[in-house]
Amino acid sequence: MSGHELFQTPWNFLGLPQKLSNPERARGWLLSIPYESTTSYGAGTREGPAAILAASRQVELYDREFGSEPAMEYGVHTTLPLNLVHRSPEAMIQSVEDAVAKLLSGSEHPKVLGVLGGEHSISGGVVRGLVRALNPDPLVAVHVDAHADLREEYEGSPYSHACAAKRIQEVCPIFQIGIRNFSAEEAAFMRRNSNIRTVFSEEASDPRGGYLRDLARFVKKKHVFLTVDLDGLDPAIMPAVGTPEPGGISWDRMLEIARTVCGNAAAVPVFDVVELAPIPGFRAPDFLAAKLVYKLFTYTLLGSRRITTGRRGNHG
Amino acid sequence: MSGHELFQTPWNFLGLPQKLSNPERARGWLLSIPYESTTSYGAGTREGPAAILAASRQVELYDREFGSEPAMEYGVHTTLPLNLVHRSPEAMIQSVEDAVAKLLSGSEHPKVLGVLGGEHSISGGVVRGLVRALNPDPLVAVHVDAHADLREEYEGSPYSHACAAKRIQEVCPIFQIGIRNFSAEEAAFMRRNSNIRTVFSEEASDPRGGYLRDLARFVKKKHVFLTVDLDGLDPAIMPAVGTPEPGGISWDRMLEIARTVCGNAAAVPVFDVVELAPIPGFRAPDFLAAKLVYKLFTYTLLGSRRITTGRRGNHG
Amino acid sequence: MSGHELFQTPWNFLGLPQKLSNPERARGWLLSIPYESTTSYGAGTREGPAAILAASRQVELYDREFGSEPAMEYGVHTTLPLNLVHRSPEAMIQSVEDAVAKLLSGSEHPKVLGVLGGEHSISGGVVRGLVRALNPDPLVAVHVDAHADLREEYEGSPYSHACAAKRIQEVCPIFQIGIRNFSAEEAAFMRRNSNIRTVFSEEASDPRGGYLRDLARFVKKKHVFLTVDLDGLDPAIMPAVGTPEPGGISWDRMLEIARTVCGNAAAVPVFDVVELAPIPGFRAPDFLAAKLVYKLFTYTLLGSRRITTGRRGNHG
Amino acid sequence: MSGHELFQTPWNFLGLPQKLSNPERARGWLLSIPYESTTSYGAGTREGPAAILAASRQVELYDREFGSEPAMEYGVHTTLPLNLVHRSPEAMIQSVEDAVAKLLSGSEHPKVLGVLGGEHSISGGVVRGLVRALNPDPLVAVHVDAHADLREEYEGSPYSHACAAKRIQEVCPIFQIGIRNFSAEEAAFMRRNSNIRTVFSEEASDPRGGYLRDLARFVKKKHVFLTVDLDGLDPAIMPAVGTPEPGGISWDRMLEIARTVCGNAAAVPVFDVVELAPIPGFRAPDFLAAKLVYKLFTYTLLGSRRITTGRRGNHG
Amino acid sequence: MSGHELFQTPWNFLGLPQKLSNPERARGWLLSIPYESTTSYGAGTREGPAAILAASRQVELYDREFGSEPAMEYGVHTTLPLNLVHRSPEAMIQSVEDAVAKLLSGSEHPKVLGVLGGEHSISGGVVRGLVRALNPDPLVAVHVDAHADLREEYEGSPYSHACAAKRIQEVCPIFQIGIRNFSAEEAAFMRRNSNIRTVFSEEASDPRGGYLRDLARFVKKKHVFLTVDLDGLDPAIMPAVGTPEPGGISWDRMLEIARTVCGNAAAVPVFDVVELAPIPGFRAPDFLAAKLVYKLFTYTLLGSRRITTGRRGNHG
Amino acid sequence: MSGHELFQTPWNFLGLPQKLSNPERARGWLLSIPYESTTSYGAGTREGPAAILAASRQVELYDREFGSEPAMEYGVHTTLPLNLVHRSPEAMIQSVEDAVAKLLSGSEHPKVLGVLGGEHSISGGVVRGLVRALNPDPLVAVHVDAHADLREEYEGSPYSHACAAKRIQEVCPIFQIGIRNFSAEEAAFMRRNSNIRTVFSEEASDPRGGYLRDLARFVKKKHVFLTVDLDGLDPAIMPAVGTPEPGGISWDRMLEIARTVCGNAAAVPVFDVVELAPIPGFRAPDFLAAKLVYKLFTYTLLGSRRITTGRRGNHG
Repeated sequence: MSGHELFQTPWNFLGLPQKLSNPERARGWLLSIPYESTTSYGAGTREGPAAILAASRQVELYDREFGSEPAMEYGVHTTLPLNLVHRSPEAMIQSVEDAVAKLLSGSEHPKVLGVLGGEHSISGGVVRGLVRALNPDPLVAVHVDAHADLREEYEGSPYSHACAAKRIQEVCPIFQIGIRNFSAEEAAFMRRNSNIRTVFSEEASDPRGGYLRDLARFVKKKHVFLTVDLDGLDPAIMPAVGTPEPGGISWDRMLEIARTVCGNAAAVPVFDVVELAPIPGFRAPDFLAAKLVYKLFTYTLLGSRRITTGRRGNHG
Repeated sequence: MSGHELFQTPWNFLGLPQKLSNPERARGWLLSIPYESTTSYGAGTREGPAAILAASRQVELYDREFGSEPAMEYGVHTTLPLNLVHRSPEAMIQSVEDAVAKLLSGSEHPKVLGVLGGEHSISGGVVRGLVRALNPDPLVAVHVDAHADLREEYEGSPYSHACAAKRIQEVCPIFQIGIRNFSAEEAAFMRRNSNIRTVFSEEASDPRGGYLRDLARFVKKKHVFLTVDLDGLDPAIMPAVGTPEPGGISWDRMLEIARTVCGNAAAVPVFDVVELAPIPGFRAPDFLAAKLVYKLFTYTLLGSRRITTGRRGNHG
Repeated sequence: MSGHELFQTPWNFLGLPQKLSNPERARGWLLSIPYESTTSYGAGTREGPAAILAASRQVELYDREFGSEPAMEYGVHTTLPLNLVHRSPEAMIQSVEDAVAKLLSGSEHPKVLGVLGGEHSISGGVVRGLVRALNPDPLVAVHVDAHADLREEYEGSPYSHACAAKRIQEVCPIFQIGIRNFSAEEAAFMRRNSNIRTVFSEEASDPRGGYLRDLARFVKKKHVFLTVDLDGLDPAIMPAVGTPEPGGISWDRMLEIARTVCGNAAAVPVFDVVELAPIPGFRAPDFLAAKLVYKLFTYTLLGSRRITTGRRGNHG
Repeated sequence: MSGHELFQTPWNFLGLPQKLSNPERARGWLLSIPYESTTSYGAGTREGPAAILAASRQVELYDREFGSEPAMEYGVHTTLPLNLVHRSPEAMIQSVEDAVAKLLSGSEHPKVLGVLGGEHSISGGVVRGLVRALNPDPLVAVHVDAHADLREEYEGSPYSHACAAKRIQEVCPIFQIGIRNFSAEEAAFMRRNSNIRTVFSEEASDPRGGYLRDLARFVKKKHVFLTVDLDGLDPAIMPAVGTPEPGGISWDRMLEIARTVCGNAAAVPVFDVVELAPIPGFRAPDFLAAKLVYKLFTYTLLGSRRITTGRRGNHG
Repeated sequence: MSGHELFQTPWNFLGLPQKLSNPERARGWLLSIPYESTTSYGAGTREGPAAILAASRQVELYDREFGSEPAMEYGVHTTLPLNLVHRSPEAMIQSVEDAVAKLLSGSEHPKVLGVLGGEHSISGGVVRGLVRALNPDPLVAVHVDAHADLREEYEGSPYSHACAAKRIQEVCPIFQIGIRNFSAEEAAFMRRNSNIRTVFSEEASDPRGGYLRDLARFVKKKHVFLTVDLDGLDPAIMPAVGTPEPGGISWDRMLEIARTVCGNAAAVPVFDVVELAPIPGFRAPDFLAAKLVYKLFTYTLLGSRRITTGRRGNHG
Repeated sequence: MSGHELFQTPWNFLGLPQKLSNPERARGWLLSIPYESTTSYGAGTREGPAAILAASRQVELYDREFGSEPAMEYGVHTTLPLNLVHRSPEAMIQSVEDAVAKLLSGSEHPKVLGVLGGEHSISGGVVRGLVRALNPDPLVAVHVDAHADLREEYEGSPYSHACAAKRIQEVCPIFQIGIRNFSAEEAAFMRRNSNIRTVFSEEASDPRGGYLRDLARFVKKKHVFLTVDLDGLDPAIMPAVGTPEPGGISWDRMLEIARTVCGNAAAVPVFDVVELAPIPGFRAPDFLAAKLVYKLFTYTLLGSRRITTGRRGNHG
């Protein structure tokens, strides 16, 4: 049984061996924030990061689109998860900002930081931490979601999951994709606010993808914070979210969005994937989320070099 | 915390405040019939109505298609659920007829009555109650389902779920959509019976929707009883049914059917949505059903005014 | 079908008819607080109150111990659930205090208020609301739990579920039963604090129940706030909790505790039952919790009259 | 791999080979009646018989109490399940009577017929079929249950699950064990009806088992119909029932009851085990039910020979 | 109740009566191999065959595509399941070969043998048994899957599920469809091996289905072994597999593949459907698999006569 | 928030900080072997080790019995899990032996090695590894289980889970506790084999615990391999096993057994806890198993010093 290791690889994203997952070597780092505090319905997003890590160990490293094993090239370091703070949502978001800033500005630091939620409210802290550490200019956000998340406050808190995009657009312009549920208040805010561009789900699902040109323009030569609330995807493939809205984005559309962002932006130093609420015994959503995170690392870390060249030629 | 209520809204459809959910004010009423007695496989439809009510409290009131919060305009009253009668399916269906007739002919009564099943056999009682109370003329039925439900009797009862459409077409002509499973006996009955028009699932799934013109003609200026067996939808988005048949209708197709009916009929005084059998821990189907019921109330109550004008211009 | 009602009773605790569940008539009121924000593991206690209400509709009104249908005598009003506040745990606990105080001091008010959690942190607000409204003197607390819940703060918040008893004993002396898990810090606090009496689980499970005499003395002629964290019960009968500790209290022991409290106290104006985290598809714990809440209403409302007379003679 | 069969045994109770499971040879027959029509809460008992059969294939044939493999001695034939009739509960119960009478009076017939429910209402048909075929005299019934099931009718039907014992005691005297839930109407009926002897759950759980002497007297030299509603057992070991009432019978108590009945009766020609409502993914209750059915076959078929001799000496 | 049978049909595929399911009469035989030993993640495929049989009893016999009840024409015999061998995967695969060869070469034997897994590794034994019994010439394999399964060995075994196609292509050329996950090693093997033709998932999902012409040529006038790993289908409709890869084949595409194979091949003497790992409480995938198996029997047994004539004309 | 760490502790048993979980410092090591290959029924034990680790992070470090936080004293190192070998059960068991021997004989090695299964067949490899590395003399095994596991081979393999104890007693004498299910072959083997002492479940459940004296004698001054198949416990508290046999050992009895072994043996250098098959969504069994593993580390590492002194005096 030569060539067969007696013990498994460490418990990290993709099950990478130590030489690819140590912080010195790895260009991608992954931070878990299993925070769930303000969720209304369908609890469980605190279990999301652990489920994504577990599923990622079954994801094949080889990527047909690249014709190689991208993670072998860049490496991913799985950091320790963030501790929870329950003094207030505000305190927790501050802690997220602190952690993200600390990771990005250390002497050892990732080229791309991926963050796993937990509820979407963490994204407000993530983007603030990004700005504090790197102050990228110009910075824009791309936001995939079923909900506009543009409430000023919700259930007494401006740091509710329902206010995630509101907090982000206070920091930088935002391009929303897949939106199909919002309030009258949010509808009014969208109409009058030039900082926000919203692509509703019908348009986002259109196979011709006309809006991708707008997206490409929006991110062109900019630094991008990409935030993916998994409920932006269609419930047929992603039922494991708190409020699964019919009529969402398909897997192929999701990858096109990511390719468009990463193929046009100057850089995507941070992305997050949030709101997976695993359904016990039902693993397909966990697996999809893990695969998406791997794809996002690959696009953000290798993308500017390769994606823009026609990908179809690489198969088999 | 000004502007924030200390207590929640009552436990009703959409979580509407008392002023919108009281029977005097509300133009839509919703009756739950958690009846399950003749189901063959995959129990649980008795839990359907409660799951739809619970999920409806998470549905956003704002509707992009209308650019407003339609329920604020018409109100919905959630009646007490019907009591169960277990002397025989016949007695239960009689009780359904009695209840529907009573609600529709009271001095206070709804403009549109929505009914939640429970198993599909209730629809035979619903249509009889509608006729007894209002005797609308001409009356036709539109029936979304995976199964033809045209058996004369099943497991000894003419009031089985498998006979639902047979009982309806004894009352009025019926237009079936999404059908993809039936018996040789039913196939023969369909062929020889001019009272029945069947659109099979392949045709119903065709994005060009040619059959919608036939449907529009069928309901034109007529009173319509709309009955939706949720297994007509594709199992990818609606697995929570007793016999989930592959190859069903998508969410967008379902809404097109509803718009076509409500935009052309003289009135849709009653609709039902039946056969949700909630899967514990898996909420996407409950949420979809709740959203569908809300859409049906909106189309049936506001539709003649607005839907026929091009809806696409209303977004954002 | 004379004598058979066409429609069901309203959706309230025990499914009581309107004449027994209206606030004017009912001597017991039940407030749901579906709050879950600081839970560490095993989410879902936000679903607890709804599951208890649903299960309670299957509980038989007749009680062998009393030889009657106690709820027919005293009535129970199910209030609207408390709205959630997510500004901070502190703000939520304040809202609990406000609601409890308001309900207890209204011109119409219950003789006994039952409260359903949600996480245990609410109890700190419940006892403060009780004091503010009624200022009962002397007041003591009886606390059934697996955990001491005596931390000064946890995950940054003094209003965490892990601090529930710490907050209560700041208001009044506390008698803890069934405890089997705590930290070194809590062990030290218990030893040095005369305000706290702790009966560990082995002693609480002893069928001879020697500690019940101490409990009787502790509550004698006092006003009692009774707080039951369901994880105090044994996981064999109550697995639906966040951290199910082996070695807990049986159903019979739990009833003995309640009888001892209610048979000796001057009054039990408020009790709560918290931390049910329903397991989808597994209803036994929900049903047990519903039955316990009914028993607590009966003991607190009828207990001083009857329990002390030998109950065994009443059977059959 | 000599001695190893290429194919598995047929899909029957205990996975017995053809030579032990054919109707000519087998002295025990097992009839499944997957009927569920009048259940109020917690659906699923229609899946009970199939789950018991599946679990039985994992039950070890060797029985320590007998020091042998009893099924190898008597054989069990698994009949085809009864077809469902949904014209009315009355028609279904008639069909149960017909089937039981037919099986018991055929030229080939079992010495003991076991029946698997399905809901408890079937027992009324089972006992009538027994009387019609064999007219055993004197006949008594022994009934393990959490509920008295003595309602005259329920939800409009005298053949509801809640009336099972009422229908049985119209045929013969009945001895109820483990009862802990009933209505005021049933309490009155029990008090005034000499045909019924009720052992409540506290008494049934008493380890000294004083009531077993009464039970022995009750069945002495009589023919017994034994009917076990699994909710008579404690929810800790049997949560898979519609209304799991805390405070039930343990596994050891259940076996003592069965031994007492079979060791004293003249014969137990028919027994049934009803109301298993399997919880998906949770097999312990299915397994327990399968083991109980095997024990009941052994006690009823071999019991008069061996059980009364001290069983403890047989171990190991 | 004339015409209504008292007892159900036997527990076999489709619930066929004895006269259609006995081995003399039936032209299709179905062998279950509930083997699971080398699975990495997401256990449960050992439950697959039983779940498919259970679901098949709900499948309607009438097939719209054929305008008849095909199973009434050809009959299906459900054999006893294969016993498991756990000495080694090699020994188990040998046992599969033995069983398949034995069934195909008996004096009574099926025209088409369907096999249900269990894990995909069994297919290596199935194809070897086919060759040993019938030695069809020329023989090719058609393989639907998400994974290439072309590893030489995996976790120490050449008979792992991850090597299924590697073992098959040692016997005959193979045409793979729906592949979307494989290793670098497998990519290299595919490129250099002319025995393998791979249609990746994007191409397989293309509604124009250009690759179907290649497939038709590949199987033209040849004997075909068709092996379907259900994870080739999209997780939206088939989440009940070990590693559900996003981006799979739809139900309609799956049927087109089967029609193309059966309409062009000389014969399809054996097919298998493997890797269903049922999700407790979630039946849609079981039902789809059962329906697929029925379709495969129909296409393989009746296909050469009818499918090539335009099927669309047969509806209704 | 001084004193509050920004990041969580590593993902190890009990969530210990690095300084207590590094291999240099830790006296207890924990090896996971997520192996499942020969299981017959109720899959899922491959998920056992990960579920125990996850639950252990919620276990309180403080132990009332010791009045301290024992893990702070001895430390636990969580090794990387063993890789799976699927060439044959024999090869896997060899790999287990190799790993255990390697860990125990390294220059850095644990004082006590805990092993988590996976299926029980691993224990045969564990005890062989123990002998190879340490050759302790005299060595005996203590075995808690519902099943005798004394088959010579099962389903073609001598390394099946059903042969675990047979393989162990080939190495050393064995004392079995809680046994309640075995075959006629095993019964005969037990009777004639002096190497085996079996305490059946009734005796093991007797609260007077007379057999504990025998157990104390059996282990006195010997080296002990303690192997706990969790199905030895009662299904009420441990339903998450493959074949949950009614009538098992309680939590208190389990601890008494462990105390008796550790308080009398010369040393317990290795123990294993096997066969947890987590039920999705149902965590009580995972939590109990985690707590048991912690208790076993404490008893084996600290026991000889303290347990024999009366533990009751330490409470509170």
